[in-house]
Amino acid sequence: MKTYLDCVPCFFRQAIEAARIAGAGRETQKKIVDELAKELRGFSLASCPPLMGRAIYSLVRRITGKADPYVDIKKQSNKLALGIYDKLKKKVARANDRLLMAVELAIAGNIIDYGIDNSLNIDKEIKKIISEENKAIRKESRANFDYPQFKRAVEKAKNILYIGDNAGEIVFDRVLIEEIKKLDKDKKIIYAVKQSPIINDVLMQDARDCGIDKIAEVISSGADAPGTIPELCSKEFLKIYKQADMVISKGQGNFEALSSRPPEPTFFLFMAKCPVVARDIGCNQRDIILFYRG
Amino acid sequence: MKTYLDCVPCFFRQAIEAARIAGAGRETQKKIVDELAKELRGFSLASCPPLMGRAIYSLVRRITGKADPYVDIKKQSNKLALGIYDKLKKKVARANDRLLMAVELAIAGNIIDYGIDNSLNIDKEIKKIISEENKAIRKESRANFDYPQFKRAVEKAKNILYIGDNAGEIVFDRVLIEEIKKLDKDKKIIYAVKQSPIINDVLMQDARDCGIDKIAEVISSGADAPGTIPELCSKEFLKIYKQADMVISKGQGNFEALSSRPPEPTFFLFMAKCPVVARDIGCNQRDIILFYRG
Repeated sequence: MKTYLDCVPCFFRQAIEAARIAGAGRETQKKIVDELAKELRGFSLASCPPLMGRAIYSLVRRITGKADPYVDIKKQSNKLALGIYDKLKKKVARANDRLLMAVELAIAGNIIDYGIDNSLNIDKEIKKIISEENKAIRKESRANFDYPQFKRAVEKAKNILYIGDNAGEIVFDRVLIEEIKKLDKDKKIIYAVKQSPIINDVLMQDARDCGIDKIAEVISSGADAPGTIPELCSKEFLKIYKQADMVISKGQGNFEALSSRPPEPTFFLFMAKCPVVARDIGCNQRDIILFYRG
Repeated sequence: MKTYLDCVPCFFRQAIEAARIAGAGRETQKKIVDELAKELRGFSLASCPPLMGRAIYSLVRRITGKADPYVDIKKQSNKLALGIYDKLKKKVARANDRLLMAVELAIAGNIIDYGIDNSLNIDKEIKKIISEENKAIRKESRANFDYPQFKRAVEKAKNILYIGDNAGEIVFDRVLIEEIKKLDKDKKIIYAVKQSPIINDVLMQDARDCGIDKIAEVISSGADAPGTIPELCSKEFLKIYKQADMVISKGQGNFEALSSRPPEPTFFLFMAKCPVVARDIGCNQRDIILFYRG
């Protein structure tokens, strides 16, 4: 996805928020904002938003000296999500279509963001998403939700690349991966994390902390943008990306980074969190999306 | 009020919005955003937000070549508000405390913004503000609402400077000024408008179109920021400002511009439209405020 001008105010909002999370005072925050203003002038709108996201968080790290400002938040999100793992498994076990429920939960997991401070909120959000209303929608044709195609692809695929997104959410990914492995335990699943800290995106440690390494091979994409921009990825990752029978891409950032180039057969699972992305897709903000592009 | 870092994303949002209202295409919008980024780096947070507002709209005018992008919007707002003038007068006539009702309506008029496209919305908003709930609050002590002091000052003042804000809203100002004149028709009221176009702020023409010139002397502040920054005002205006027994300042922009310096005895009437101002005051967003500072 290209960058819209409406992304610009949000770039500054993100920079200020990240600076505060990194413990920056007012003067340091202003310095970061000024540096961002400088970078913005050379930034092409043809680039995807995560490229600017990368620049923003790089600025914050450099100016505050904090290598991973979100480390505590990530740990907390993982702990929170691991605490409801059994509940998620029960939800799947009770569902008529287990895979569908696991897919919906994996997308719903995208709401676990550092803004959410207790499990009650998560419960509420999940209930909203897996509501009766949504069940009714499922019976009708559902826009931006290519589930039948996803199901066929999952059943057929021998090797799947699963590109992770955020801490916390990764536990929901585990539930979906476990369901996929249930179809055929010999399916090879590779789970990709970021190379180095970027917002609350998953790293190798998060994959280990949340037990992903027990059910999938965990690799790094080689990149550190808040979205998997191929130009920034390692050769090893790109080889796996190209050879996969199916790619499952989680989160809005990965959608922004991968959607506009001719992709490998990719399913984008995410919640449309911002109005710009919602407008780009033609959906409502907070819709859950399962998009096929191949 | 000083500028908060949280104002920065909003500066860019305003620039993009104004550029679009001026009919700018994507490239021109980007040029405006880049120029704003350049200006931002030299901008001190000790300045008040309307100073940057002035720079933003000056950029938009210069780059798009449109001297008054909001001219049609202003005309439409005035027409809309004049259309409910009789209804406003009836509301005041039926009130137990006519002056209080006129004050509340004058603040409520601040919601007439170019975003609102029909009179039904305005009706709804006014009803919400003048609701039973608010009537109940009136009986209790009301935070940030120095009405008793306002009433005493209005009764006593011989010459009042009334600093206007937006088109549309000006009709609500007229209703309040008419109530003030009812107390004593010999009170001298001077109504100040902006010198030249800035967003949807009132100019001399708006004051004439809405009949303010029949009940008050209309002057220009000499300034063209979206808030009356004394350093930018004419000597004539400043003389009147200093000699007034009482100043009524309308709108958030005038509050931002005038609140942090030792003011002449001033009553600030406005709706706290943004989260930053609400936090600065310690109120909720959309609260109606009547602040005395003197």
